[in-house]
Amino acid sequence: MIYVVGIGPGDMDGLTMEALYILKMCDIVSGYKVYIDLMKKFLPEKIFAVYPMRSEVERCEDALNFSKLGKKIALISSGDAGVYGMAGLMLEVAQGSGEEIKIIPGVTAANSAAAILGAPLMNDYVVVSLSDLMTPWEIIEKRLKAACKGDFVICIYNPASHNRPENFKNACKILRKYKPSDTPCAYVRNIKRAKLHAEIMTLKEIQACEKIDMLTTVIIGNSQTYVSEGKLITPRGYKI
Amino acid sequence: MIYVVGIGPGDMDGLTMEALYILKMCDIVSGYKVYIDLMKKFLPEKIFAVYPMRSEVERCEDALNFSKLGKKIALISSGDAGVYGMAGLMLEVAQGSGEEIKIIPGVTAANSAAAILGAPLMNDYVVVSLSDLMTPWEIIEKRLKAACKGDFVICIYNPASHNRPENFKNACKILRKYKPSDTPCAYVRNIKRAKLHAEIMTLKEIQACEKIDMLTTVIIGNSQTYVSEGKLITPRGYKI
Repeated sequence: MIYVVGIGPGDMDGLTMEALYILKMCDIVSGYKVYIDLMKKFLPEKIFAVYPMRSEVERCEDALNFSKLGKKIALISSGDAGVYGMAGLMLEVAQGSGEEIKIIPGVTAANSAAAILGAPLMNDYVVVSLSDLMTPWEIIEKRLKAACKGDFVICIYNPASHNRPENFKNACKILRKYKPSDTPCAYVRNIKRAKLHAEIMTLKEIQACEKIDMLTTVIIGNSQTYVSEGKLITPRGYKI
Repeated sequence: MIYVVGIGPGDMDGLTMEALYILKMCDIVSGYKVYIDLMKKFLPEKIFAVYPMRSEVERCEDALNFSKLGKKIALISSGDAGVYGMAGLMLEVAQGSGEEIKIIPGVTAANSAAAILGAPLMNDYVVVSLSDLMTPWEIIEKRLKAACKGDFVICIYNPASHNRPENFKNACKILRKYKPSDTPCAYVRNIKRAKLHAEIMTLKEIQACEKIDMLTTVIIGNSQTYVSEGKLITPRGYKI
């Protein structure tokens, strides 16, 4: 039996009761080193399978083998396992095996970042990743344009990394064709970890911001989003 | 002090550790009757403020008054408080009061429904509500079209209700102009409650489905979404 478990934004506080129960109950907890290290402090008696970055397929194949040996294994994923996480890949790797797979949802970065910033996702929003490792840049560009045309709030995952530092700035160029320069935006870095940093600024400012990296989640407001008392708010439309 | 707490998909299992801690710590837990009833069983010693539907502004005004009296109050919202929930309204009602407000994120229905269905949100997605109580239908229509043009997976909240049973069918009409009739779709009803029901079908079938109501979350696949072994999957693009 394989459980793919979203652990939330990055500390034990963000785990759901269900996720905690599954982690405690499983024989093996498997995942990327950084997240396993977070869990180790709280689950001292557990067997851990620890992996470097970019070993996602190997993790799933190993999980399948452990499961075939009759072990209960929890494959952990930061945020929600079903949002750019391990859920889909695990289901694909296990196709035809007959092994049972259960996905345990968690709080994804869009929602944990939004909570830190105020309430920017109170109206319709898109979640889009700027990683062009597996999605061609033309498709990402098409999606950014569509999100602007629909006046969605835009939540950006994987805005930039060492290998593709220019993706976020290129995305901002597209956004600025459709949105005013003073559109309220924000980023949250290291959600829920010791070095949490969040900042609200304009679209023009965030385009020039040097702090946007792979640990950052960015939110771009829609035409109704505003800043009040340090909070980023997209109104739902209640009369008050 | 006011905490706006997302309680997740509808039972105690879906609460995060942080949300549980806040609920236990607060003097008063406030919210819609259905969700308060869920909490009552597990927090027997608590003072509850119980409200009917459509009393959202009153709940926030009361919370503000309790907070001014020095009470710690938890205003609960199903799913994530920041997604069509109480977070934004509470921040707006409290503007100028000087009362401190903290938003505690939860697992929103898009992610809990996706976990039940498989992994349909593994690539870029939109979250859109079909409730035209506060958003004009023309804007909803514009967003559905934009979501199709961007080939996003589409997660629909509030698809239909007694007062607007036709909204979902009208939305499907728009989607079918852009997407093949056999696009994989699914709905989840009563996520995590006793009467959970989920079904995977085509876009054509879901348009005719009579089970779509206000307790339902609907997911419409993108051009890559497929069904395998009873699971709805949007591939991320890993080579396996």
